[in-house]
Amino acid sequence: MRAMVIGGAGFIGSHLCDSLIENRHDVICVDNFSNGREESIRHLIGRSNFVLYRTDAALQSELDEVFKKERPEIVYQMAANSDIQASANNPDVEYRNTYSTTYQTLCCMRNYGVKKLFFASTSAVYGDKRETLLTEDTPDLSPVSYYGAAKLGSEALISAFTYMNDMQSLIFRFPNVAGPRLTHGVIFDFIRKLNRDNSRLQILGDGRQTKPYIFVADLVDAIIKFSLTDKTGFRDGGPCADREADTASDSGAANKNAGVTIYNVGVEGATSVKRIADMICEEMGLSNVKYEYTGGEHGWTGDVPRFRYCLDRIHRAGWEAKLSSDEAVRRTVREVLKDDERSRT
Amino acid sequence: MRAMVIGGAGFIGSHLCDSLIENRHDVICVDNFSNGREESIRHLIGRSNFVLYRTDAALQSELDEVFKKERPEIVYQMAANSDIQASANNPDVEYRNTYSTTYQTLCCMRNYGVKKLFFASTSAVYGDKRETLLTEDTPDLSPVSYYGAAKLGSEALISAFTYMNDMQSLIFRFPNVAGPRLTHGVIFDFIRKLNRDNSRLQILGDGRQTKPYIFVADLVDAIIKFSLTDKTGFRDGGPCADREADTASDSGAANKNAGVTIYNVGVEGATSVKRIADMICEEMGLSNVKYEYTGGEHGWTGDVPRFRYCLDRIHRAGWEAKLSSDEAVRRTVREVLKDDERSRT
Repeated sequence: MRAMVIGGAGFIGSHLCDSLIENRHDVICVDNFSNGREESIRHLIGRSNFVLYRTDAALQSELDEVFKKERPEIVYQMAANSDIQASANNPDVEYRNTYSTTYQTLCCMRNYGVKKLFFASTSAVYGDKRETLLTEDTPDLSPVSYYGAAKLGSEALISAFTYMNDMQSLIFRFPNVAGPRLTHGVIFDFIRKLNRDNSRLQILGDGRQTKPYIFVADLVDAIIKFSLTDKTGFRDGGPCADREADTASDSGAANKNAGVTIYNVGVEGATSVKRIADMICEEMGLSNVKYEYTGGEHGWTGDVPRFRYCLDRIHRAGWEAKLSSDEAVRRTVREVLKDDERSRT
Repeated sequence: MRAMVIGGAGFIGSHLCDSLIENRHDVICVDNFSNGREESIRHLIGRSNFVLYRTDAALQSELDEVFKKERPEIVYQMAANSDIQASANNPDVEYRNTYSTTYQTLCCMRNYGVKKLFFASTSAVYGDKRETLLTEDTPDLSPVSYYGAAKLGSEALISAFTYMNDMQSLIFRFPNVAGPRLTHGVIFDFIRKLNRDNSRLQILGDGRQTKPYIFVADLVDAIIKFSLTDKTGFRDGGPCADREADTASDSGAANKNAGVTIYNVGVEGATSVKRIADMICEEMGLSNVKYEYTGGEHGWTGDVPRFRYCLDRIHRAGWEAKLSSDEAVRRTVREVLKDDERSRT
């Protein structure tokens, strides 16, 4: 399959490129390197089934050139501003890097007749619903961050483009994702802070924000399985007959737009910010770190301090994460520390 | 109150300007005249409490200038591409005129500390759900038109901006709207076609598409009542205590983003396209018009042939439309014909 990965040099995108290459697909990697990093894909450059475009997907004319030349069969739209905390001060980042990249991707797919889309969405589309068990059909989606708003707007675009152009789209709503090649987020930040000063650690909020963390390899496994090698993803005829009935009963509403399939993707358990700090200190061999909380239940305005995912739909479709949230965090801490050590020597 | 009406020269926007002026508010009318028409607001130009800006709200720098100078207390975001059929061939129109105008409006409100927003949304955000009775909390919103997608994306933006900037936002999801100053749509099209050739009438689809039509004066009455003169709209403290409990029970989910209030706005009954054709022929005194159906249940791809609104929330809040759907269509036909006659003499 000729697979285009937009945002392919990013944290998750680069792991997806690895897995696609490993599965002998042709990969067209598109990245503007705003969040993506060269070192995340350097090992792929020169492979016969890998090609890299330094292209800004928010610019229609640039992206159009790549589509015209490469004619992908499936597109993975992984490009987005991935740092929610940063965009809280500048919504333009989300308008441009999250919403507009999706819009231009869809326009190119429409122009060149590309029919299959995978989209990286997020728990942030739900907003702050606290103890509500979030199913894919939870009503009243009310994002509280510009990031969540741009992703929900992107889902709306996908709904219309899919219907209008007979496409098939697969949307995964990711929880927090952890693993090697992280470029930001609480694990990355804590390690960086402790490398600078290992006597104390500033923790945003009260440290009780608790989220599920999925290990990036688990997530990529699900993406590959549902988008390429299994029958549980795209609703292209027969394979998804089950899902049709399933959705109708989940939502209690008939829906004439059957080309879009949405899954919450998650893991067992969740990990508090305080617990992450503890694990990092353990792994770094630090015992007397003073935690300094900035206070309040949110890490920053727009942060959702905790949420609960219902994973019934994806479990029924035959997928479960191998690592729990705590295991994903622990493994990530170890790999990031190993990488740090490697880059120091 | 200093009220800014973005899209104020449009069909609904111009009627809203009239009503605001009548209620002695100061009106700042912003329009780029892409859909809006000079003749719809000409009678207001020169009034001491009316000022007009020929400004494109999709352009941040232009809109910023108007906000800086005028400092509105409330913003009515009525600007959008309003011709769904037209944008089916060019989604850029929706990206620019519907989504980006809302985004830039919200950015200006954020920059200048404007706290109250009214937003003109649409039944198109629900997608094609057929016989499902649509409440404001119906799950799985799946727009099938680029227009619906841009409006749902706009609602998502409003959710995030409201939360992040302590705003209060009131969203009305309009059904079809009819009345004087129509610039497009089935009533307008049929009259134009019959003026050219009164022996036959081409009808898109099978003519059984059936929608509720609200008379524009009824709609503007609701907008004014909820946004300015009553206690049923914005959730600013006490007045909305009832609504808080109400929403929680409607959706079955706690929602921490309490600054946004959404209402379906509608009327009693619905009117089929065939019935509209019949009424127009009656009012024009034509008896032998041959109807030529293009066939199929949709007027065009992305058209939702019928939908059913639950109006319990807005009825409980103390508002009902005066005219039924059929009455709204009949009145509109008469007024448009009268206008046509006036402009010919």
